[in-house]
Amino acid sequence: MSAELSRRALLGLAGAGAVAAGVGAVGVARAVSDAAASDRVEFYGEHQAGIATPVQSHLIVSAFDVNTDDVSRLTALLQQWTAMAAALTSGHEVGDTGAFNGAPAAPPDDNGEATLLPTANLTITVGFGASLFRQPSSRKPSERQGSDRFGVVDQMPAALADLPAFPMDALDASRSDGDIGVQVCADDAQVAMHAMRAIKRVAFGTCVQRWSQTGFVSRPTDDSTPRNLFGFKDGTANLTTADELNAHVWADDEPGWMAGGSYLVARRVAMTIEVWDRTSLAEQEDIIGRRKGDGAPLSGGDEFSEPDFEAPLVDAPAPLPGEPLQQRAIPELAHIRLAHPSRHGGRRMLRRGYNYQDGIDDLGRWDAGLFFMAYSRDPREHVVPPLAALARDDVMNEYIRHTASAQFAMVPGVRDPSDWWGRDLFEGTSPF
Amino acid sequence: MSAELSRRALLGLAGAGAVAAGVGAVGVARAVSDAAASDRVEFYGEHQAGIATPVQSHLIVSAFDVNTDDVSRLTALLQQWTAMAAALTSGHEVGDTGAFNGAPAAPPDDNGEATLLPTANLTITVGFGASLFRQPSSRKPSERQGSDRFGVVDQMPAALADLPAFPMDALDASRSDGDIGVQVCADDAQVAMHAMRAIKRVAFGTCVQRWSQTGFVSRPTDDSTPRNLFGFKDGTANLTTADELNAHVWADDEPGWMAGGSYLVARRVAMTIEVWDRTSLAEQEDIIGRRKGDGAPLSGGDEFSEPDFEAPLVDAPAPLPGEPLQQRAIPELAHIRLAHPSRHGGRRMLRRGYNYQDGIDDLGRWDAGLFFMAYSRDPREHVVPPLAALARDDVMNEYIRHTASAQFAMVPGVRDPSDWWGRDLFEGTSPF
Repeated sequence: MSAELSRRALLGLAGAGAVAAGVGAVGVARAVSDAAASDRVEFYGEHQAGIATPVQSHLIVSAFDVNTDDVSRLTALLQQWTAMAAALTSGHEVGDTGAFNGAPAAPPDDNGEATLLPTANLTITVGFGASLFRQPSSRKPSERQGSDRFGVVDQMPAALADLPAFPMDALDASRSDGDIGVQVCADDAQVAMHAMRAIKRVAFGTCVQRWSQTGFVSRPTDDSTPRNLFGFKDGTANLTTADELNAHVWADDEPGWMAGGSYLVARRVAMTIEVWDRTSLAEQEDIIGRRKGDGAPLSGGDEFSEPDFEAPLVDAPAPLPGEPLQQRAIPELAHIRLAHPSRHGGRRMLRRGYNYQDGIDDLGRWDAGLFFMAYSRDPREHVVPPLAALARDDVMNEYIRHTASAQFAMVPGVRDPSDWWGRDLFEGTSPF
Repeated sequence: MSAELSRRALLGLAGAGAVAAGVGAVGVARAVSDAAASDRVEFYGEHQAGIATPVQSHLIVSAFDVNTDDVSRLTALLQQWTAMAAALTSGHEVGDTGAFNGAPAAPPDDNGEATLLPTANLTITVGFGASLFRQPSSRKPSERQGSDRFGVVDQMPAALADLPAFPMDALDASRSDGDIGVQVCADDAQVAMHAMRAIKRVAFGTCVQRWSQTGFVSRPTDDSTPRNLFGFKDGTANLTTADELNAHVWADDEPGWMAGGSYLVARRVAMTIEVWDRTSLAEQEDIIGRRKGDGAPLSGGDEFSEPDFEAPLVDAPAPLPGEPLQQRAIPELAHIRLAHPSRHGGRRMLRRGYNYQDGIDDLGRWDAGLFFMAYSRDPREHVVPPLAALARDDVMNEYIRHTASAQFAMVPGVRDPSDWWGRDLFEGTSPF
């Protein structure tokens, strides 16, 4: 279909029936052109897209609480969401009629604000929180026990155990946790918003949106590592190869329905931007343990050199009485030392963090920071130990505050159009 | 300078002195490459960039309140801001040393999070609110009279008169007004944030950030008119030619310091997204007065056809007793009828609206809508009459709420590196 023909069809100049008949359940064509195929991420596969997918420039992640105890309504929504995501991530609108070809007396299936926008490498990635398994939907801790409302309590992964309470946590419960987590990433803010809006819209009556967070990150023109709002490269030693992903990211078959999935730990890390900007370059680099410019560890080399945690500090001043005789190039409490896999059994995580900026607070300070997201095969071993070490000793804690936290079992990939998110979990209990 | 050489210099591998000496006051080179020149908007000129400049995909607009009565500190800040904006919009970092080449014991001049990012058509545009002229910085209405703190009260433009209170206004004072307005636009969210952060940082001690709003808009792949979160094209009949801009947008010389400037009216228009998405296509189109798909007026033609407000409704059902005998294709209270320049003396405005999405509210509803921005030579004649007509009669009011409002006299362009924002206003009163 030529771009021109597609556009004509979209704008209702062709018959609505012809358009709808051509695409059926996967939705109405939105923007078909030769260029479009290069900005699409395959939806179907062993693993969900949006985990090992190269980071797109925009994020919206939301948690939803299920407000029904009827498992058939929940599974029907999951099937609808899956079909919608397949359509959206391949550049289609949602529903049978799209934005413009429905019956005038009915609301359009799609609001249309992404019409003729690029697909923008859109990914939509879904997972389940612990509360989906073991508790009614509630924000009140006192109600966080109770019935096995969906009959899946014995299918809850051990790896989804609650995160411990970390020192310095300042968590806002209304921005934390949730029954279902949905991560939308795209290289276009409006495409991302359109997708999350569509996801939320059809959840009405089954789920309420509990919280939502928008983020952004920009890749330098030379394709070097992106920087966070501290101005430092973030994600230098990240996981990329299939072997690394298999070893650290993709879940095994305990429980079986999670085989090929992954566990997401998300933490909203507020940065005190104004204070950081008055901190000396040397202090910033000592806190991180890397040079700000090229990202090399303070022990030398380049960004991708292994840190030498034993290397002595060159040109160190003579120690004062009571100080250690020999200072190290990478300070004892530097962020990269505390977090390094060598201190945590060699276990690693896939970081997928986004910068966020939610305006300013009542005192005129930036409400901004890092929305930290880490994927692993088991957060208890891959994520909690470094987070605990950082929470205890990281000097960076003077410049950050963890204001929200969530954890989701991100399900395995959708294998084909007959599959749907969570099918292996629910098919033993659902009426389907 | 090659990209490689530039990067080496940036990362501190070349001497800091050599870098600083090469660029002087306009800042350290950030990302120099052959491609970069194509994504820069010229900073100097008769008019400020960012007004008639084609809309970039990301917006951050903030208001600042001056918290000193010392005019020399204010004018020093305006000069510093001007130099910073000239550097940033030409792809440089701020300050003499940038992010990585300063003294280790001092904070970096630039935080560095935009290092090696594209310039992304960054524009920074500045204007003054009425409170700068006539009142001390305060959010309390009871304090909104008082001293002529900067000696410019007789230079306040008549066109900057307060907007009237419109019916249905639900304005949050803490998100409204302000002494100085700064609009940052760029095709990259991180580049925009970096610029506003730098602007705010150097204002410390002279200004506090009063409010800040982030926005986005995406241009379709066929370069057609962007859509707002109602899914409709927004900006169809916008001003583009020099004649149009001269007639409707650029201010005259009353007062003289504003000649070539323009007046910005900004309104934060919250949309009830969830309700809109349950509204029929016919109702949506009747509210706007245009077809959702191609944007054509309901009287026929295409997007750019002039609406025929007298055209009868084809295939109208027979009127019931009490209804008018003949319905019109474009309903009596359609948005485009109420707002059309033909009803307002032919006066027009340059719309520069952005979609916004600030997460969800306490009830789980989207906190999203349109950050309406309109530039004109005199809001009293070009903007207030259509806004008043819409506030009174627009059926769209059932789906929107005006939650914030601001107005700024956006100063004329900076003519050359010796000029600075507001110089013509302050040079008669400042000690320079």
